[in-house]
Amino acid sequence: MLNEMAELKELKGVPHRDFYNVRKVDTHIHAAACMNQKQLLKFIQTTYKTEADRVVLEKGGLKKTLREVFSSLQKDPYDLTGRQTFHRFDKFNSKYNPVGASELREIYLKTDNYIEGEYFARIIKEVARDLEESKYQHAEPRLSIYGRTPKEWDNLARWFIQHKVHSRNLRWIIQVPRIYDIFKSKKIIPSFAKMLENIFLPLFEATVNPQQHKELHVFLKSVTGFDSVDDESKHSNHMFSYKSPKPEEWTAEENPPYSYYLFYMYANIMVLNNLRKERGLSTFQFRPHCGEAGSITHLVSAFLTADNISHGLNLKKSPVLQYLYYLAQVPIAMSPLSNNSLFLEYSKNPLREFLHKGLCVSLSTDDPMQFHYTKEALMEEYAIAAQLWKLSTCDVCEIARNSVLQSGLSHKEKEHFLGVNYLTDGPEGNDIRRTNVAQIRMAFRHETLCNELSLLLDAVKSECPAPTQ
Amino acid sequence: MLNEMAELKELKGVPHRDFYNVRKVDTHIHAAACMNQKQLLKFIQTTYKTEADRVVLEKGGLKKTLREVFSSLQKDPYDLTGRQTFHRFDKFNSKYNPVGASELREIYLKTDNYIEGEYFARIIKEVARDLEESKYQHAEPRLSIYGRTPKEWDNLARWFIQHKVHSRNLRWIIQVPRIYDIFKSKKIIPSFAKMLENIFLPLFEATVNPQQHKELHVFLKSVTGFDSVDDESKHSNHMFSYKSPKPEEWTAEENPPYSYYLFYMYANIMVLNNLRKERGLSTFQFRPHCGEAGSITHLVSAFLTADNISHGLNLKKSPVLQYLYYLAQVPIAMSPLSNNSLFLEYSKNPLREFLHKGLCVSLSTDDPMQFHYTKEALMEEYAIAAQLWKLSTCDVCEIARNSVLQSGLSHKEKEHFLGVNYLTDGPEGNDIRRTNVAQIRMAFRHETLCNELSLLLDAVKSECPAPTQ
Repeated sequence: MLNEMAELKELKGVPHRDFYNVRKVDTHIHAAACMNQKQLLKFIQTTYKTEADRVVLEKGGLKKTLREVFSSLQKDPYDLTGRQTFHRFDKFNSKYNPVGASELREIYLKTDNYIEGEYFARIIKEVARDLEESKYQHAEPRLSIYGRTPKEWDNLARWFIQHKVHSRNLRWIIQVPRIYDIFKSKKIIPSFAKMLENIFLPLFEATVNPQQHKELHVFLKSVTGFDSVDDESKHSNHMFSYKSPKPEEWTAEENPPYSYYLFYMYANIMVLNNLRKERGLSTFQFRPHCGEAGSITHLVSAFLTADNISHGLNLKKSPVLQYLYYLAQVPIAMSPLSNNSLFLEYSKNPLREFLHKGLCVSLSTDDPMQFHYTKEALMEEYAIAAQLWKLSTCDVCEIARNSVLQSGLSHKEKEHFLGVNYLTDGPEGNDIRRTNVAQIRMAFRHETLCNELSLLLDAVKSECPAPTQ
Repeated sequence: MLNEMAELKELKGVPHRDFYNVRKVDTHIHAAACMNQKQLLKFIQTTYKTEADRVVLEKGGLKKTLREVFSSLQKDPYDLTGRQTFHRFDKFNSKYNPVGASELREIYLKTDNYIEGEYFARIIKEVARDLEESKYQHAEPRLSIYGRTPKEWDNLARWFIQHKVHSRNLRWIIQVPRIYDIFKSKKIIPSFAKMLENIFLPLFEATVNPQQHKELHVFLKSVTGFDSVDDESKHSNHMFSYKSPKPEEWTAEENPPYSYYLFYMYANIMVLNNLRKERGLSTFQFRPHCGEAGSITHLVSAFLTADNISHGLNLKKSPVLQYLYYLAQVPIAMSPLSNNSLFLEYSKNPLREFLHKGLCVSLSTDDPMQFHYTKEALMEEYAIAAQLWKLSTCDVCEIARNSVLQSGLSHKEKEHFLGVNYLTDGPEGNDIRRTNVAQIRMAFRHETLCNELSLLLDAVKSECPAPTQ
């Protein structure tokens, strides 16, 4: 705070750069809700106008055209209206149903439907085009892999390539819902190991033998990480320990706990990354949803396994964990507007406090379809935070810089957006002409962190004195 | 609150209509700050790229091209950056200077400069085009008439017509700064009466003899009202009463008080309106800034003279005045984001409370160039209010309806946007298919108001019993 005027003065001397043209990444956004509501409704109406007689759905062997779908729903597409009440925790069931009709979700927001995900691809490409036009905004949308069958990856890759969904402003993250219990109860899979196998084996195969899995191999170049998603407040009675059943032994109906999911995803991703690194291929980050609700211990699991996390709200309740996340600079993608709708009043959101303390926080939208009003959802997210918390230009640019740092953008892109030394700590690593973050701020952050670390080091030394010579 | 679910259910039955496609009017916005910062900077850069050698300024007989202006400012137009620190209360001097340079303000945000306001017209037309494309959004920008000379009106009308600034999504309001004292101290005018004469005489002349004042006559068709603007916290020692000097006797250096300005503007507008009505011409609303700061008594002056007011924050401090504004349903155009930057933390803004009590409030942006991040400033204003205060769809649609009601849009347009009976009180006056405001809400508002009025009527009757027969 004391540096505020000095920072402002420093930033005024920076040519060509302001908050609008620093790079920002929407670090947490779900593909099936990445569009503005109005945009989706318009798209639905357009398809109805131009392709009403196209077969778009097959249900129990019965093929249906768009016109028939709407007539059986007893809805006129021009009667569809905006902001619906969505349910929260059937996230992978009805949450994203436009206007509450699962047929419309099936047709418009799925990659593997009768029309081979064409509509979903088209609307995502609209979103991508807007980002490309904005130039300075990127996003990391989540697509689902469930682990129900081993074919999911090939299908997703085919969708991606067939519809040319690639955009240089998008990097893809695979979200894995923690719903073993549902598949088990429907007898789709025999054990947790089978779910892991369905998720990871195709990746090992494509890594070992890319020529045999061309589409997946190409798709994986655009995939930069894994997310673990579901309602964190779902409680598990199992306590994960070295005595826990191995995945192939986990055949109970009960869902494994959060920590179990995280460990086995982490373990598989690590082995996979080592293999890929060896072969000169891209690797994956692990970026689970964590600390949005439920037990504080989730934050322990993620601290030990994750590259960065989404939400992190519950760090508010644990100063010790908060301090660890600070010391290790574990990035946190926060979404205060989403939290405001679901869990925590905006004014009580800890983002501002975390930022001021020096935690590595970024701003993200989560679900623009549900939470945002304008077509510029990420800017809306920044605008509200800046207005409500009276953030300075340096503050919002620091958040934007954090978002690039923690993102899955390539080393080359990060060099371009943050400066060639971006991996160096402190002001030396910051190119103010690219980030618009004041060097005074960078120096303050660096000093503070170094002080804390040396404090700890001193404490450790006094506990375990160095051997006398 | 008890009706919330019922309202939601009622709204779900409304075809073709949601918050996005109900009409909204930005009821308070200053033309010189009606564009997004980024838009203005881009425009400046475009002119520099294409017209650098055009003469755009004349200063002390010396003509300057754009290139010369930027070189004398020692600025490269590509180095201009966004969000500057603006000063507040030199509103009519340096507040709107882009990047703090008064030359740029002169060139880009003035109607009467060397290039005859061409750039200002062009950028306003960009803003208008965006509104026209959005279709459902309108705005009522303020243009200044100072009362310095009687020629101001003809100049402004010429600018308007020459550059074809007309848009069906814009209605113009004339703001008159309360700065008699500045003109007097510079010996530009001898008395307050001269200022009034400069402001109003041209309008009487154009009304009596439109053929002689063709441009002004045409321009006045797009002007729908007057605003009175300046820092309300400027204190005056003079107490307005029947003993106060008449305008022609007000020759002191001192500025007249707020009440004096309001009364004389009101009186002139009333006489002018009567004359215009007689001749079948359009009339003007009186819509002063009021209750943003300064004395609470401003709200008394406006209650007696205004059609509606901008801001009204200070009603918070006076339950009695608040009750009067409620009873008379005097509309209030509120701008919580502007207030948040200048006067009052967002969370303390009384808009939500006023809305819940049934005051006729609308949302407006004041100065998008200063306060808003996205290009959709009005939507950003609604989004933040809706998010922070958890407003329902019915709430935001009621605010939007209020904005149309209090606007200067024509009777025909209001019939079209609100329903043909919009002048009728209560649910009968509401066409839910156009406004998306639940009839339950309309009935509640109407009943509550009628109850209050009959309560007062009973009290009055018991005080002054009707004559016995």
